[in-house]
Amino acid sequence: MDVTSSEFQTLYEAMTTFVNTCMSGHDPSHNPAHVHRVANLANTILQAEQTANPTKPLSAAVVKLAALLHDIGDRKYLPTLASTTSDGTTDIDPKTMVQIALLNAGAPSDLATKVQTVVSHVSYTTECKDPALIRRLIEQDGYPELAIVQDADRLDAIGAIGIGRTFTFLGAQGKKFAKEGEWEMGNCIEHFVEKLERLEGMMKTETGRGMARVRTERLGVFRGWWEEEMGVATASV
Amino acid sequence: MDVTSSEFQTLYEAMTTFVNTCMSGHDPSHNPAHVHRVANLANTILQAEQTANPTKPLSAAVVKLAALLHDIGDRKYLPTLASTTSDGTTDIDPKTMVQIALLNAGAPSDLATKVQTVVSHVSYTTECKDPALIRRLIEQDGYPELAIVQDADRLDAIGAIGIGRTFTFLGAQGKKFAKEGEWEMGNCIEHFVEKLERLEGMMKTETGRGMARVRTERLGVFRGWWEEEMGVATASV
Repeated sequence: MDVTSSEFQTLYEAMTTFVNTCMSGHDPSHNPAHVHRVANLANTILQAEQTANPTKPLSAAVVKLAALLHDIGDRKYLPTLASTTSDGTTDIDPKTMVQIALLNAGAPSDLATKVQTVVSHVSYTTECKDPALIRRLIEQDGYPELAIVQDADRLDAIGAIGIGRTFTFLGAQGKKFAKEGEWEMGNCIEHFVEKLERLEGMMKTETGRGMARVRTERLGVFRGWWEEEMGVATASV
Repeated sequence: MDVTSSEFQTLYEAMTTFVNTCMSGHDPSHNPAHVHRVANLANTILQAEQTANPTKPLSAAVVKLAALLHDIGDRKYLPTLASTTSDGTTDIDPKTMVQIALLNAGAPSDLATKVQTVVSHVSYTTECKDPALIRRLIEQDGYPELAIVQDADRLDAIGAIGIGRTFTFLGAQGKKFAKEGEWEMGNCIEHFVEKLERLEGMMKTETGRGMARVRTERLGVFRGWWEEEMGVATASV
């Protein structure tokens, strides 16, 4: 589907409304503003990759729609979303939400299927479970767009924005995920080490890797500040 | 009251239990870990100030108890606290909570009154309403300890820890304070400019001012990162 066509513009606008409706109640770590940053980052990476490799087959429609819809069906927020539907949770299957929304808005079924497949494989957790599957999808099975959407989403998870999102998520959702009596900011610093500082090494595009390098350095600088300040504030006096 | 006496140790332990009980349910921006960091910072500043001015009359008992109790009665969290009491909100007067808790634990009434006065005047909002009153309390009316407790609390509001606390508070409480549809991380960056970056100029002790300079520079570096990343992620593509 040609992204300059009026059909695509209409579809993209309908999906933007859908995303805003689904996510407007979410805390600022995963709200529509996050999605729109990722959509912009994905466009930036797409343009740079197309300029660097003009012959590489990349569907701009898949990149744009998958970036916009990448957090639809996110299990961390599904209960919130389900509780906002009139008929509860039973009608919500995170594996098909994106495809169904696209078909309902009149998208061609091959496009809807491809966008759903990209969205279903964006997450870090999914990649950690089966890294070879992600590589195969990108390099052999015809989903090179997945590399761009993953990189865009991961760029918004690191640097100053990633730091802000991690602490915002801790405040909004952390109590649910914390073990008894462990709802502390230190959980965020552990998250930097266990996940965020590893993302640079998992970037799939040259453009994304370059941007990730700068933002990962910022995570390290911030963590150095944190350790210095905590050292002063927890010294036994 | 001599802080090395067993009476003070018993009183301090009782107040620590009281603080942990009142604040253990709070989000990590204002939980017992924050209070204990401020207590440590206040001790560090007290020791440095006493070394620099050995003749200056400073009550270590007032500094230690006011730092420990400085967030008791914080209006941002009072409803939460009230809802945890058996008889609702009516028995809670933030202006006397600290004094009553100290008296109930057997503190001398002059100490209880002095600690309550310091706690009641720690906040940035209180100082902005009447800066001259705060200066008079510290310089003329015999509350030099207020300068130390204010500086300790403000140090925990800036630097990497302050950045973490600001975003954590946004996630946990921000929806309540945000205007319609404005629950966004950008609110935190506005808070840096409107309040946090001004705290260095309001520090009262030499020790506190020196520590604040370093942490305020960190706020500025972080804000520079934020603006660069937001510029990329919100560029129209």
